[in-house]
Amino acid sequence: MKQVAIGIDIGGTNSVFGIVDQDGNVIVKSSIDTPQHGDVERYVADLSKAIDQLINESKLSEDKVEIMGLGVGAPNGNYYTGSIEYAPNLSFKGVVPLVDLLKKHFDVPVIALTNDANAAAIGEMVYGGAKGMKNFVMITLGTGLGSGIVVNGDLVYGADGFAGEVGHTTIIHGGRVCGCGKRGHLETYCSAPGIKRTVFELLAEYNGGNSALADKSYNEMTSKMVFDAAEAGDEIAIKAFAKTGEILGRAMADTVNHLSPEAIFLFGGPAAAGDYIFKPTKEAMEANCLPIFQNKVKILPSKLKSGSAAIVGASALVWKELEKKSVENVVE
Amino acid sequence: MKQVAIGIDIGGTNSVFGIVDQDGNVIVKSSIDTPQHGDVERYVADLSKAIDQLINESKLSEDKVEIMGLGVGAPNGNYYTGSIEYAPNLSFKGVVPLVDLLKKHFDVPVIALTNDANAAAIGEMVYGGAKGMKNFVMITLGTGLGSGIVVNGDLVYGADGFAGEVGHTTIIHGGRVCGCGKRGHLETYCSAPGIKRTVFELLAEYNGGNSALADKSYNEMTSKMVFDAAEAGDEIAIKAFAKTGEILGRAMADTVNHLSPEAIFLFGGPAAAGDYIFKPTKEAMEANCLPIFQNKVKILPSKLKSGSAAIVGASALVWKELEKKSVENVVE
Repeated sequence: MKQVAIGIDIGGTNSVFGIVDQDGNVIVKSSIDTPQHGDVERYVADLSKAIDQLINESKLSEDKVEIMGLGVGAPNGNYYTGSIEYAPNLSFKGVVPLVDLLKKHFDVPVIALTNDANAAAIGEMVYGGAKGMKNFVMITLGTGLGSGIVVNGDLVYGADGFAGEVGHTTIIHGGRVCGCGKRGHLETYCSAPGIKRTVFELLAEYNGGNSALADKSYNEMTSKMVFDAAEAGDEIAIKAFAKTGEILGRAMADTVNHLSPEAIFLFGGPAAAGDYIFKPTKEAMEANCLPIFQNKVKILPSKLKSGSAAIVGASALVWKELEKKSVENVVE
Repeated sequence: MKQVAIGIDIGGTNSVFGIVDQDGNVIVKSSIDTPQHGDVERYVADLSKAIDQLINESKLSEDKVEIMGLGVGAPNGNYYTGSIEYAPNLSFKGVVPLVDLLKKHFDVPVIALTNDANAAAIGEMVYGGAKGMKNFVMITLGTGLGSGIVVNGDLVYGADGFAGEVGHTTIIHGGRVCGCGKRGHLETYCSAPGIKRTVFELLAEYNGGNSALADKSYNEMTSKMVFDAAEAGDEIAIKAFAKTGEILGRAMADTVNHLSPEAIFLFGGPAAAGDYIFKPTKEAMEANCLPIFQNKVKILPSKLKSGSAAIVGASALVWKELEKKSVENVVE
């Protein structure tokens, strides 16, 4: 019998979920709206019904596949408590005991929750480029900068379940205003909006700089446009990526000084800009880390497929939990 | 039979060692010069002889105590390889296979090596204020700023054995020159010399500021003098501690954002300044860490005794290794 896991990614507007095999292939997937009504019990009932429906429609009848568990990635998802805690972008307020609520609907060996960047890190470890690595860092570049840290083969959750907020380390004291209210945080520079902010600073500095990007308003500009402009040789766009990488590399040097990882994986839209971002990141990291760490740490593109990474990452939680349980059983 | 461990701390000028019981009490201790001749085999032979002599002189005859192992703290000590690698302040050049050399002289269950700050962290975990903590950070303030990071109850060694170099994270881009050749590193601000450098900046800024410290040359000033001046109400001295704490707290916020530890321990001379340093450190950490971590992370003085901490920390490696071995035996 083939064993599969269900990966669920809860975002501010959509909840996507899929059935994933042990190699990280998404067999089937679907989605429902993440509701704005704040009634989490109704949401979990709807989500559970949609998952059951997906299983039935997929014709993976129970004698052919065994569902080993549900893995959930959600903003402010706490692995230790199984709760979503005070997520600013979800309508569910306060502490939501998501794992307990899901247990009422599903009788499976594992139901586990973490945040989306941690799920991506576990996905990279279970299915992706970090297979066999014991110490690495996953950086997800999107609306913000998320991170998942793996030490000795395990995700670092810290004392409270929320470790791995590298996006909120201060890279420029007194710098740009962050969504969290503080200033100078890494994600205000190294993220899709961060790149746009850098473009606007450069347009101001160079008085437009003969850039095609000078025709775009702040609200219409995307990091994809900046990439296209860079590809067309636009100097402002190229400089914007160089600065983004330079800042990311400096931050990664500090992360390396803490953790000495084998590799740092970059995931998400801005990472698709390839050498425009990888090259300055690598250079700045090497220039700023302690000599003992130089030329040791790889900066690699994530091997998770962008379209299904959230589902795949969340599903990886299930295999990781099963692996841990088997070790614990031996010890006990 | 009472079980004991031998802790060895190899410094640039002295090698101190002692016999330590399971509660962290140093039963007897001694020291030899760390030689400047670079002949490591001769040094290990001399060290081993001195340790044997200490055991014999202490009249801990072998039917009363059992020596469970040797733990060594040394600059650039690599836990994984058991070697001291390219230590700038020791006369032994290149890669020195210290553990292998010690094994020729001692037949004990454990011989293990790490750097001094990691040893201090393990000491804090085994005997000190971090007993029972699974996630914490040890900061040692001395000539430099050393750190040991504990995640899930284990020291973080990283991919290469050298993780935990928080002193070399960049806190002020382009700032003070560090001993490693880079600029703006945390230890150039938060260490015994770092405090002195801050005093000299402040004396320059305030044109002496009516401070008693304005009578001291750079070479004669110590961080202890700064503490004494602060106690006497000297404003430059008080400001110097406030700035040191403010910078340390900002750095600790970034460490918290990575690791979400339960506590951060401060150890060493400057930490003896108590509230002069703890208060601004705590305030700056709280002001700069992500709201989700606020009012969660304790900043605590180390409970290791300053006179014997190096020996005690190194000896703790032995108990930690024995604990790991017993878990591994069950798993296998």
